[in-house]
This record gives sequence, structure tokens and C-alpha cells, in this order.
Amino acid sequence: MDVFFLMEMIGTVAFACSGAMVAIEKRLDLLGIIVLGETTAVGGGMIRDIIIGIHPPALFVDPIYVIAAFVSVMVLFVAVKYFYQSADILESPMYEAVLNLLDAIGLGAFTVVGIDTAVGAGFGEYKFLMIFLGVITGVGGGILRDMMAGQTPAVLRKHVYACASIAGAVCYVILMNYTGEGPAMVVSAILVTVIRVLARHYKWNLPRAI
Amino acid sequence: MDVFFLMEMIGTVAFACSGAMVAIEKRLDLLGIIVLGETTAVGGGMIRDIIIGIHPPALFVDPIYVIAAFVSVMVLFVAVKYFYQSADILESPMYEAVLNLLDAIGLGAFTVVGIDTAVGAGFGEYKFLMIFLGVITGVGGGILRDMMAGQTPAVLRKHVYACASIAGAVCYVILMNYTGEGPAMVVSAILVTVIRVLARHYKWNLPRAI
Amino acid sequence: MDVFFLMEMIGTVAFACSGAMVAIEKRLDLLGIIVLGETTAVGGGMIRDIIIGIHPPALFVDPIYVIAAFVSVMVLFVAVKYFYQSADILESPMYEAVLNLLDAIGLGAFTVVGIDTAVGAGFGEYKFLMIFLGVITGVGGGILRDMMAGQTPAVLRKHVYACASIAGAVCYVILMNYTGEGPAMVVSAILVTVIRVLARHYKWNLPRAI
Repeated sequence: MDVFFLMEMIGTVAFACSGAMVAIEKRLDLLGIIVLGETTAVGGGMIRDIIIGIHPPALFVDPIYVIAAFVSVMVLFVAVKYFYQSADILESPMYEAVLNLLDAIGLGAFTVVGIDTAVGAGFGEYKFLMIFLGVITGVGGGILRDMMAGQTPAVLRKHVYACASIAGAVCYVILMNYTGEGPAMVVSAILVTVIRVLARHYKWNLPRAI
Repeated sequence: MDVFFLMEMIGTVAFACSGAMVAIEKRLDLLGIIVLGETTAVGGGMIRDIIIGIHPPALFVDPIYVIAAFVSVMVLFVAVKYFYQSADILESPMYEAVLNLLDAIGLGAFTVVGIDTAVGAGFGEYKFLMIFLGVITGVGGGILRDMMAGQTPAVLRKHVYACASIAGAVCYVILMNYTGEGPAMVVSAILVTVIRVLARHYKWNLPRAI
Repeated sequence: MDVFFLMEMIGTVAFACSGAMVAIEKRLDLLGIIVLGETTAVGGGMIRDIIIGIHPPALFVDPIYVIAAFVSVMVLFVAVKYFYQSADILESPMYEAVLNLLDAIGLGAFTVVGIDTAVGAGFGEYKFLMIFLGVITGVGGGILRDMMAGQTPAVLRKHVYACASIAGAVCYVILMNYTGEGPAMVVSAILVTVIRVLARHYKWNLPRAI
């Protein structure tokens, strides 16, 4: 079983659904939902590939992730449309909780995928670059999603969002020397997701200036 | 007559004017109008060149499109300033209709220009990449325009916006094998524009989830 | 004394503080303040490096500017938190004036740094490209800052913002042939900052269309 492929697929599906849910909240039509889902799912990887000089970015050459995101969005769309008739769902705490969980899963999966791509591209010696690329791959799709949807990016607004990604990235860079890439990826991705879920549940806050 | 040059020039002028009209709506001053016009006109092509690894992007080496966009913006600015004294024009349906038409023309022209650039860069074998690059070139400038102007990007909000671009891109990729690039470009660009104009007129809508 | 390093460091500190001040205005927590400060400080340079094809961008390989921006943000955060207890500071004209000054300093420093990087990358023959890259390096970080913070980018809204950067860029390209790079950088960066400060003080306005 290829852990890298599995992680990228988990991240793609989770982020595609998170983008689609934000689009549904904004009352966009089906096309807007698809575009926002796709952008969230493949945006972080595209930014990463542009930064390290992979031309053209992987998603353009092998569209499997674009297709996976499309299928995820369509399934979500049908589920929401036929099982929920009213807009009440948008106000329910459950909607917000699911959206947050999907975002946390995507953040964890894409953080480790980003580091692994950096290693594969020959940057395994640059620890700082690897961590930075992991974080950008993790948060990039969500930043594009939020900026296009007209809301403050999660990375600026949510409890310990960037911190969770950095913690997972550092964990991966250390662990991979001892356990190999596969187990290190899984553990680090879960770490990110758990930190985000706990941060939301216990409302971990950092101080404000004023 | 070089059809590629003609298409790129049509797209540049149309998108420069659309960016300037949005800036006028937002009551920006002349500099803001020029910056938004330029960004809209050359933004999609810059994103495309970065994605396929053309360094530096064509617009930096040969500034003819930057100059064309500048002239277009200045002509539009003078026309609006001296022929319309009041802000009533901004509320008139005509203003919105012209803005929409210019956006549709730019979308069509840049979609085919994007595909042609991908072919020229040696990606003629990758059908998916060609279509994707065409769509990104078409919608990219408008996304930058709308995000900078603080409004939801047209690609999320307008009737069958991305669909029109995809339809034109697929049409071009198929047609070019039979008719050569020139006629295929013209037909496909017109197809995009016509779909967008019809979509607006008949208010073609896709379903919402809720 | 390396003038290039000095200029980049001045720009980094000034832009990091401007990003942090905007984040404080938006009532973000410490993490949001750090993320917005970093984005503002290194965003323009990252966009520039991506455009001219420096893979990976310099900031990823040598994190000195990332660290400098981090330290600047922390110092600013502590200063605001402990010396000002109330939110009144955000309404004071002084806060706005300091923010504007830091933004003007960063704009000047990064404009000349961007041109110098273009020359170093072998584009010294393309005057238009050099000026454009200088302006993008200067305004890029601020555009990312304002778009993430949900406000109209300074380059669209502020008095002669892009003009000041263009004036400094043209000044540098001309001067460097006579005085060498060091003095030309200092003079041009100061020119940009002075133009911006004067523009704000005397409320230089360009005409609007309506």
C-alpha cells in the first residue's frame, strides 16, 4: 500500500468537501461549489509545485486528484440536497463541526504530503525548506478557498491552525529518520488533526495584543 | 494575419476595460483604475506562464500587452469622465451589460490563447493540461480582479462561467485537428462569448444545494 | 557594508511590523499576527523569485529574513500589549501614521531590492522587466497582506502608491549607471518613501472617473 498516495487522496477528498461546504454556506450554485471544491483540494499542491519548480505541476499531468475532488464534491452535493431540505442545516453546530474536522484532516494529510514531495524533489537536506513547504501545502488550499469565498483565511483566524501544521511537520522531519517515511507520515498527519480538533473543542486561544 | 496575436490583443483590451470598469464602480482614483485594469489584462497570462515554467513570463519581456492595456484604460477613463457627468451610469443596466460583454470576450479570447501557449510550450500531447491551462488563462485575470476589488470572483458567482470556458477549450482541442489553429481559435473564442451572453440573458442557472 | 543586505533587512522589518499592525487592528490572536507579519515581509520576494524562476525562492533556503520578521513581530506585539492597555490606540491618528510610514519604508526598500535581484539573475538588459520586478517586489507583500486581511489593497486605494514605486524604480535604473548600485539603491529607496509620506500628508489625489 502506497502511504503517499493514500495521504494525498485523503487530503484531496477532505479539502474538496470542505471547499464545497463553504460554497454551500455562501449559497453558490453547483458550478461555484465545484470550482471552490477543486481549488481547495488542488490549490496547496499547485502552489508547492510552483515554489519548488515542478513545471507543470503534477495535478495537470495526472488528473486523478482533480477527478477525485470532483467526485467528492458531487457526492456531497447530492447528499446535502436530498437529505436536507431546509437551510437550517447551515446553522446547526454539526455542520460547522464536520467542516472543521474535514479541514483538520486535509491540513494533516497535505502537511506530510508537502514534505514528502520536497524530499522527492531533492531538498531532503534543507530542514527549514521541508517544514515550510509542508505548512504551505497544508494551508495553501484553505487560504485560496477562504480568500475566494470572501472570508478571513482560517490560518489567521482559527485556534492554533498554523501551529498544528508546524508541529506535524517538525514531527515528520524528526520521525522519518527513525521509522521510515510511511509510519512517520501517518503519525504526523494524525498529530495535526488531533491538535486541531482539541484546539477547537477546548477553545485554545493565544493572546491578542489588545 | 496572426490570429494568435489578434486574439491576445482582443482579450487584453477587453479585460483591461473590464478591470477599469470594476475599479470605476468601486470609486477608485486613476491609479487604482490603471492597476486593476493591468492586473486583469495580464494576470491570467502571468499565472499560466508561471505554471508551465516560462521564466520570466512573456509580458515582462515584451511589454506590448501592458502598453495596450494602459491605452485601453486611459481611453475608457476619458470616455467615462467626459461623456458621463453623474454616477447614475453605474446603476444603469447598460453599464453592467457592457461590463459583462467585455468579460465574456476576454474569457473567450484568453481561453484559446492559453491553449495555444501550452501547445507552443510543448504540451500538445497532454489534452487535460491544455484544457486546464486554457481555462486558467481565461478565468485567472478575472479572479485577481475580483479578489483585489473585494467581490466574489465571477467564476464562483456568474451563470455557467467556468463551463463556458471549458466548453470553448474542449471545442478548440477537438477542432484544431481538423481545421488548423487559426479557424479553431476564432470559432472556440466566439463559442465561449456566445454561451456567456446567452447564459446571462436567459439567466441559465445551475441548482443550489440548499 | 552590504547595502543590498541592509535594504532587504530594512524592508523585511518594516513590512513585518506593518503586517502585524494590520493584524492587531483586525483583532487577530498572536498566531494570526505572526502569519500576517511573515506573509507581508516575505511575500513580495517570493512572488518575484517565482516570476524569474529562482527555485526554490531564496527565503526558503536561507531563513534569515523569516527569522528577522518573526523577531520584529514579537517585539511589536510585546510593545503594544504592555505599553497600551486599551483599544483606543487603534483609533489614534498616530497608529495610522506609523503604519503608513512602515509601509512606505518597506515599499522603498523592496522596490530597489527587487531590481537588484533581477540584475543578479541576469536580466540587466531588460529595463522594463527590471522596473516591473521592482514594483512587484515592492507592492506584492502588501497586496497579500491586504487581501488576507479582507481590505482593499493599498496599491488600489492609497495616494500615488504604485506611482511612488515606479518613480523609485526608474530612478534606480538610471542612477545605477552613474553612481554604482549602493548609492543608487539608497537614494531611490528614500525617494519612494518621501513621495509616499508627502502624498499622504498633502493628500495628493488623482482624479476619479466619476
